[in-house]
Amino acid sequence: MGIVDEVGAGVTLLKKGDRVVMPFNVACGRCLNCEEGKSAFCTHVNPGFAGGAYGYVAMGPYQGGQAEYVKVPFADFNALKLPPGTEHEEDFALLADIFPTGWHGVELSGFRPGESVAVFGAGPVGLMAGYSAVLRGASEVYVVDRVPERLQKAKEIGCIPIDFSKSDPAEQIKALRGGREVDRGVDAVGYQATSADGKSEKPNAVLEALIAVVRPTGGLGIPGLYVPSDPGAPDSASAKGYISFPFGKLFEKGLSIGTGQCNVKTYNRYLRDLIIAGKAKPSFVVSHNLSLDEATSAYDKFDKRIDGYTKVLLHP
Amino acid sequence: MGIVDEVGAGVTLLKKGDRVVMPFNVACGRCLNCEEGKSAFCTHVNPGFAGGAYGYVAMGPYQGGQAEYVKVPFADFNALKLPPGTEHEEDFALLADIFPTGWHGVELSGFRPGESVAVFGAGPVGLMAGYSAVLRGASEVYVVDRVPERLQKAKEIGCIPIDFSKSDPAEQIKALRGGREVDRGVDAVGYQATSADGKSEKPNAVLEALIAVVRPTGGLGIPGLYVPSDPGAPDSASAKGYISFPFGKLFEKGLSIGTGQCNVKTYNRYLRDLIIAGKAKPSFVVSHNLSLDEATSAYDKFDKRIDGYTKVLLHP
Amino acid sequence: MGIVDEVGAGVTLLKKGDRVVMPFNVACGRCLNCEEGKSAFCTHVNPGFAGGAYGYVAMGPYQGGQAEYVKVPFADFNALKLPPGTEHEEDFALLADIFPTGWHGVELSGFRPGESVAVFGAGPVGLMAGYSAVLRGASEVYVVDRVPERLQKAKEIGCIPIDFSKSDPAEQIKALRGGREVDRGVDAVGYQATSADGKSEKPNAVLEALIAVVRPTGGLGIPGLYVPSDPGAPDSASAKGYISFPFGKLFEKGLSIGTGQCNVKTYNRYLRDLIIAGKAKPSFVVSHNLSLDEATSAYDKFDKRIDGYTKVLLHP
Amino acid sequence: MGIVDEVGAGVTLLKKGDRVVMPFNVACGRCLNCEEGKSAFCTHVNPGFAGGAYGYVAMGPYQGGQAEYVKVPFADFNALKLPPGTEHEEDFALLADIFPTGWHGVELSGFRPGESVAVFGAGPVGLMAGYSAVLRGASEVYVVDRVPERLQKAKEIGCIPIDFSKSDPAEQIKALRGGREVDRGVDAVGYQATSADGKSEKPNAVLEALIAVVRPTGGLGIPGLYVPSDPGAPDSASAKGYISFPFGKLFEKGLSIGTGQCNVKTYNRYLRDLIIAGKAKPSFVVSHNLSLDEATSAYDKFDKRIDGYTKVLLHP
Repeated sequence: MGIVDEVGAGVTLLKKGDRVVMPFNVACGRCLNCEEGKSAFCTHVNPGFAGGAYGYVAMGPYQGGQAEYVKVPFADFNALKLPPGTEHEEDFALLADIFPTGWHGVELSGFRPGESVAVFGAGPVGLMAGYSAVLRGASEVYVVDRVPERLQKAKEIGCIPIDFSKSDPAEQIKALRGGREVDRGVDAVGYQATSADGKSEKPNAVLEALIAVVRPTGGLGIPGLYVPSDPGAPDSASAKGYISFPFGKLFEKGLSIGTGQCNVKTYNRYLRDLIIAGKAKPSFVVSHNLSLDEATSAYDKFDKRIDGYTKVLLHP
Repeated sequence: MGIVDEVGAGVTLLKKGDRVVMPFNVACGRCLNCEEGKSAFCTHVNPGFAGGAYGYVAMGPYQGGQAEYVKVPFADFNALKLPPGTEHEEDFALLADIFPTGWHGVELSGFRPGESVAVFGAGPVGLMAGYSAVLRGASEVYVVDRVPERLQKAKEIGCIPIDFSKSDPAEQIKALRGGREVDRGVDAVGYQATSADGKSEKPNAVLEALIAVVRPTGGLGIPGLYVPSDPGAPDSASAKGYISFPFGKLFEKGLSIGTGQCNVKTYNRYLRDLIIAGKAKPSFVVSHNLSLDEATSAYDKFDKRIDGYTKVLLHP
Repeated sequence: MGIVDEVGAGVTLLKKGDRVVMPFNVACGRCLNCEEGKSAFCTHVNPGFAGGAYGYVAMGPYQGGQAEYVKVPFADFNALKLPPGTEHEEDFALLADIFPTGWHGVELSGFRPGESVAVFGAGPVGLMAGYSAVLRGASEVYVVDRVPERLQKAKEIGCIPIDFSKSDPAEQIKALRGGREVDRGVDAVGYQATSADGKSEKPNAVLEALIAVVRPTGGLGIPGLYVPSDPGAPDSASAKGYISFPFGKLFEKGLSIGTGQCNVKTYNRYLRDLIIAGKAKPSFVVSHNLSLDEATSAYDKFDKRIDGYTKVLLHP
Repeated sequence: MGIVDEVGAGVTLLKKGDRVVMPFNVACGRCLNCEEGKSAFCTHVNPGFAGGAYGYVAMGPYQGGQAEYVKVPFADFNALKLPPGTEHEEDFALLADIFPTGWHGVELSGFRPGESVAVFGAGPVGLMAGYSAVLRGASEVYVVDRVPERLQKAKEIGCIPIDFSKSDPAEQIKALRGGREVDRGVDAVGYQATSADGKSEKPNAVLEALIAVVRPTGGLGIPGLYVPSDPGAPDSASAKGYISFPFGKLFEKGLSIGTGQCNVKTYNRYLRDLIIAGKAKPSFVVSHNLSLDEATSAYDKFDKRIDGYTKVLLHP
C-alpha cells in the first residue's frame, strides 16, 4: 500500500498522488486467466508458470513489496484505488493479501449465506476466513486452533473457538451441534498442519478433519498452502507434495474441493467498499505497527510466535 | 425401467400402465439434500447414511432392480415418466445410471461449452462422459483407456482416443495439443485404476494423470468410485480409503474437484428429452440384450471382459 | 406456524407434537419446478397453473392459513421443523412468508456480498429485503419509502433511509454516493406504486427508478407483486397487466431482471438456522400480536395504515 | 479481422504479423466491468457511458472497423489471436460480432443443456443464437421469422422453423409440443419487431410472444437491440425507449430477463476453439464476400433484403 509516485507510459487510470493498494499477485490483465477473474494464475507475467507475485520463490522476477518503493507492472490492472487521506490505513493494508485470502477460502468452499462453517487455523488467514463467513451471513462459524490468544480473537469476532489440543476437533464441533456436521470447511493451515500437541508435522491432519466434519454434499475451501515440493517434509511422499487422505470417504460424502492462491483482484474492490462503509474492520487482527527497519526482528518474533506477534504492519 | 403395475396410496402422479425408468438411487424427495437436487445423498431412506440404492451394499434395505418387479419407495419422486410404447427402449434404459453418471462427471468438472476435456476410462461411464461432453459443445474430448474396442467406440462418437498402455497419457494429450493442457478432466475409473500394463492396481494413477493434464484453474470431475474401505487394496492406506496424490501440485494449479455418486434425478428429464428429440442416442454403448435368466453368465463375461461384453441390458 | 396435531398416511418425517412452520406456498415436491427449488411454481397442486397457496385467489383449492387448524398437503415436503418449545415464536412465524420473500428479492437481484443495494418499499417485505442484504454483507443498503415510521425502522437495522416524497429517490441515492449508482435494486412495491405524493397509482414508478439507479451490468430483483389483470388500474394497459417502462435504457445498461413469488422452501431452513443462532431477529418488524378474533379489525387498520399496524401476528 | 501491422509501446502479447480478430466492442481491460467479463460495458474507453465500439453512435471516438487499417486501443486486451494462415477465414470473421452475440443470447436466457429454446428472428444474430443452442445441447430449438430463406437456413442447422406470418408463433410452438411451453426464449429482433404482416412496427411484439411461450421459471435472453431513444418510433412512449408489455404475466410466471450487448471477449476464445476443432462452422450464414469498395451497394441491398444479402463479408 502506498502513494503513486510516478506512472509509466501505458498507465491511463492512475496518476501521481493516488493512494493505492496492490494485491500480492502480479498479473497482466490480458491473458485468459486474468480475464476470467483468476489473476493468481496469470500466464503472462511469469513465463512457464501460472502466477506471479512480489518477492516470492518461483513467482517471477518481481522484487518484494515490503520496501519504500515498488515498481508495479500492469499498474492500471494491479492497483486498487483508495480514497485519499489516511483513514482506514490498517484495514486497507490487509486488502493486499489476508483479508481477500480469507474471503477466498470461504468462496472456494461453496459457502451460501445461512450455512455453518468450520475454519481450521486461527492465524491471520484463518481469522479473516472466519470473519468473512460472519460478514457473509453464516449461521455458525467454528474456528479451530491450539493457541489461546488466537482462539480468543476468533471469539471476539463472533466465532466459536475450538481447541484441537484438547480433543478431536471434528468431534468437538459435532458435539456442540447435537451430532450434526457443518455445511462448509476451510483449511487455512495447509501442509504445515501438526499433530494435536503441535510438536510434529502431520500434513494431512486438516484434510482428514475437514472430511470428517463437513456434511455430505458440502464443500471444502483450501486457501492454506500446499506445495509440490517440501524438502523438510516428515516423509518422502510429502516431500514431493503428495498428501494421503481419506479420498474414499470424501467421495462417499460427495464433497467438493476448491484450492489455490487468492485472486485478490476478484474481491478487493468489494472488501474496500465494506471497509469504507464501516461494515468491515479487519485490522482487529493487527498486533503491531513497526517501521521497515524493524522487519527482521519482527519476522523472527512472528516465526517464534512470541510477544503476540500475530500480524505486523511495516511502515516504510 | 418398466411399466407401472400397481401404485401405493401416497402416489399422485403415476398410474398403472405408465412407462417409467428409475434412478439407481432411492431417495425421499423431502430431505435437505433431495430438495437441493442432491438425491444421491438422501438422508432419509437409509438412516445413518447419506444415500440409498437398490441392491447395493450399505445403501439401505432395497432389493436389487434387476428383477421382474421392483417396489419403488416414494414413487412419484423416483420414477421418471417416459412416452408410452417401446421406442428408444435401449436408450431410456441407460437413464437409470450410466448416461446421467457420465453427464454428472462432466458437470462435476465445472465444464463450460467450448472447453476441452480429458476423460479417463472408456468403460460405459467413461464413454457416456465423453459423449456428454460432445453433446454439450466441447471443442475437444480425449478418452483414455487401454482396450482397443473401447477406444474405437470413443472415436466413433467424436472423441480422440488415447491408449495409455503405449505411453504416459497426459504427455500424449499435451503433445497432440502443442503442449497445452486441457480445461477439464473426468475420472471415470476410480480406485481400481491400474498401471500402464493393466496388471497391478494403482489407485492414484488417474488422479495423478488428471492433475498433470488439466490446466491451472481447471476442474476435475470424479464420478468414478472411490471407497472408504477396500479390503483387497494393494496397501494398508488404500485399504482404509486413503489415496496419496500430488495435492501440492493440485493446489499450485488452483484446481477444483467435484466428487460423488450421480444425482440421477437432476439430469434424467433433460437427457430423456434429448433422446426423444433424436439428439442423443446413448445406446451405442450397449453390446448385448439378454434375458434375466442369462444374467449370471453375462456378469461373468463382463467381469472377464470377454466376447465384447461392454454393456448388457437384461430383459425380464 | 403451529403444532402437528395429526399426520396422514403418506407422512414419514413428521409426528404429532412437532412444532412446524409452513410456507405460504403449497407445493408437491415431485414436479420439475419443485425438484429444482422453484416450489412457488409447483405444476401439480393447482392444475392448469404453476403455483399454489393457502387462501389465495387462483392459487388452488386450499383454505387460508390464518386459522386454528390447517390441513397441509404433501406435509413432509411443505412443513419446516422447528425446535420444540416457544422460543423465537415471532421470528419463526415470519419464515412463512415475508422473511424469505425479502431474502428472495435480494437473491433475484443477483446480489453478491460487498455490493450496494437499493430497496424500494419499506413495508414488511421491503424491510426484510433490506435486512437480508445487511445480513448477507452488503456494503450499503438504501431503503426508499415515504412513511416516516417505516424509514425509521430501516435506519434501525443499518439501512440508509430515502424519502421519495421529498425528491427523486434515484437522484437522492446517487447524490449520497458521489454520483455513483448502486449495484443491485429490489422492487418490494409492485404494481401499486404511487406518485411522489402517494395520491395516485403509477404502476411503473419503481421500475423507472430502479433502471435509473442501478449501474450498468447490475440486476433488479422483483419480489413485489405485478398481476396479469388489475381491474382497478389507472389505465387500460395496466388493467391487462401491461407495464410501460424504459426498456431501451434497461437494455443499454445490460441489466438483468428476476421476478416471481418466493420459493419459500429454498431459503427457510437457512433462515431458521440464522434465527436459532441469534444472527437474525426479523421480528423487529412486528407491530402487534393479536388473537384470531381480532383479525378483521386488524386488517382494516393495516389497510388504512393507522395506529402503526405495520405487521400483525395472529394467534389462534 | 486482419494482420497486425504495427504494435504500440504498451503491447506485450502481440507482434507484427499476428492474425487477429477484434470484438466490435472497444474495452480497456482494467475497469470493474472489464475485469468481471462485462467488456461491452467498459466504463473507461468512452467517458460518461458504459461501453465503447468502433464506428457506432455514442460509443466513443473510435472509427469504424470496416476499413483497410484499424487502430486498436488496449490491443492486448481487445485482440484475439488466431492461428496463422488463411484457414477458417469466414468463420473467424464472425467472431467479431454475430457468433458471440447469438451465443450471448442463449447465455442470457439461462439456458442449460437438454432444454428447449425459442429464438425470435432468423437474421444473422438469430441464426447464430439457434446454432449456439444446437451446439450447446438443446433438445429442441424453434426459430421464428417470416422470410422463407432465413427459415430454410434455420432448418438446415437443425432447428425447427416457425413462420409467424401464418399464425401466432407462440401457439404454433406449443401446438408442436403437445401444448407445452419451451424452457428458454431469445429475442434476436429488438425494438424493430413488426406485426405479422411485416408492415408495421410493433416494438413489444417479441416480448409479448416470449412471455407467452416460455414456461414458468424459464428465462428470456435479449441480445436484440432496444434503444433509449427512437425518433422514428410508432408512438411517443416508444420514441423515449419505453416498451409496454405483459409484466404482470412475466411476474406470475417467475421469468427472468437478461439483456445487453454482447461481451464478445467472454466467449470468443471458446468459439474460436470450436471452429478450429471443426465443431462449429458459423459461416453457413454468409451470403456474399465482397470488396470494401462494394460496401455501399451491399449495405443498400442488405437493407432492402434483396438478392439474398443476408450476411456480407467485406474484404479490404
